[in-house]
Amino acid sequence: MSYLNNLYIALLHHPAYNKNGEVVTTAVTNLDLHDISRVARTYGANRFYIITPLKNQREFVEQILSHWQRGYGASCNPMRKEAFDITSVRTNLSEVRDEITRNTGNDVFMVATSASKQSRSGSYEELRKMMKNLDLNFLVLFGTGWGLAKEVLQQADLTLEPIEGPTDYNHLSVRSAVSIVMDRLMGRSST
Amino acid sequence: MSYLNNLYIALLHHPAYNKNGEVVTTAVTNLDLHDISRVARTYGANRFYIITPLKNQREFVEQILSHWQRGYGASCNPMRKEAFDITSVRTNLSEVRDEITRNTGNDVFMVATSASKQSRSGSYEELRKMMKNLDLNFLVLFGTGWGLAKEVLQQADLTLEPIEGPTDYNHLSVRSAVSIVMDRLMGRSST
Repeated sequence: MSYLNNLYIALLHHPAYNKNGEVVTTAVTNLDLHDISRVARTYGANRFYIITPLKNQREFVEQILSHWQRGYGASCNPMRKEAFDITSVRTNLSEVRDEITRNTGNDVFMVATSASKQSRSGSYEELRKMMKNLDLNFLVLFGTGWGLAKEVLQQADLTLEPIEGPTDYNHLSVRSAVSIVMDRLMGRSST
Repeated sequence: MSYLNNLYIALLHHPAYNKNGEVVTTAVTNLDLHDISRVARTYGANRFYIITPLKNQREFVEQILSHWQRGYGASCNPMRKEAFDITSVRTNLSEVRDEITRNTGNDVFMVATSASKQSRSGSYEELRKMMKNLDLNFLVLFGTGWGLAKEVLQQADLTLEPIEGPTDYNHLSVRSAVSIVMDRLMGRSST
């Protein structure tokens, strides 16, 4: 399928911070699955992975995916089926990395996102150039709750600079953050 | 408040198309209020208006707003309060236009958005230039359901070109669309 590129998205429900800075497993939000699948499909992502270590949460996601991929949802809304066709649920990040490497024969370059400035922040332009020039898979990681735990940021090969508007407020939903990051990396416009 | 600019967002629940191309009033979605308020606040929008002609739907929105603006939500999550402080619910578009003109003494330039190419589509760059140079208020209109009815597009002074990625799929949620449009109009990045 010609629209697929070397870009992958992962939404992590663990390890994530809660409001008090503790590392927790957050609950899956149905609308995250819908919104992010649609964004991933629009911007030609190869695959969108939902990551949670909780078996019952993975079963919940599988039920939703199966409704839209093969059940009544697929015939009722073929556009939604097309979005969900690239969506999967997995247990952890290393499972996802291994799967991508196995399927493509290429290594995975891990890109973290964060609402706060990190010491090793990279620009969107930098990442776009790498995606164009390097024979690697690029897996962009998004956190839930109060964001990706430090151990994930430390594992990443690059952390993208925070999304900023003209204000000092940057408390976006993860649905908004994924949309904006994908548009900055893959969007076409006459801007 | 210095972060405020001449940009306003409106989310219309009427007149909107349903799946069969009929003009209907769509139901308000709670998460639209949260996500779009946060995006509006991040990108310094002056105000975010939720528009619905249905009294019980406006009451539903008022309940949510009051919880986050003044109720328990305001103390429990002050960042969410800050986002909701710029959010209001109104009956129709002309009420919103009149209010903005009355408050500022300046006219309103109406910008429609659509997932399909219109005959009078304008670019993001064009709009950014106008926002910088003209002494007008810019009200960006977003549809729900299957999009803004034709009569709204016809009233608009400009319709923004559709959001496109590298694929022919562009079925984004309105939450994603607002996020991307705001970033294209007001985002700061070293891209």
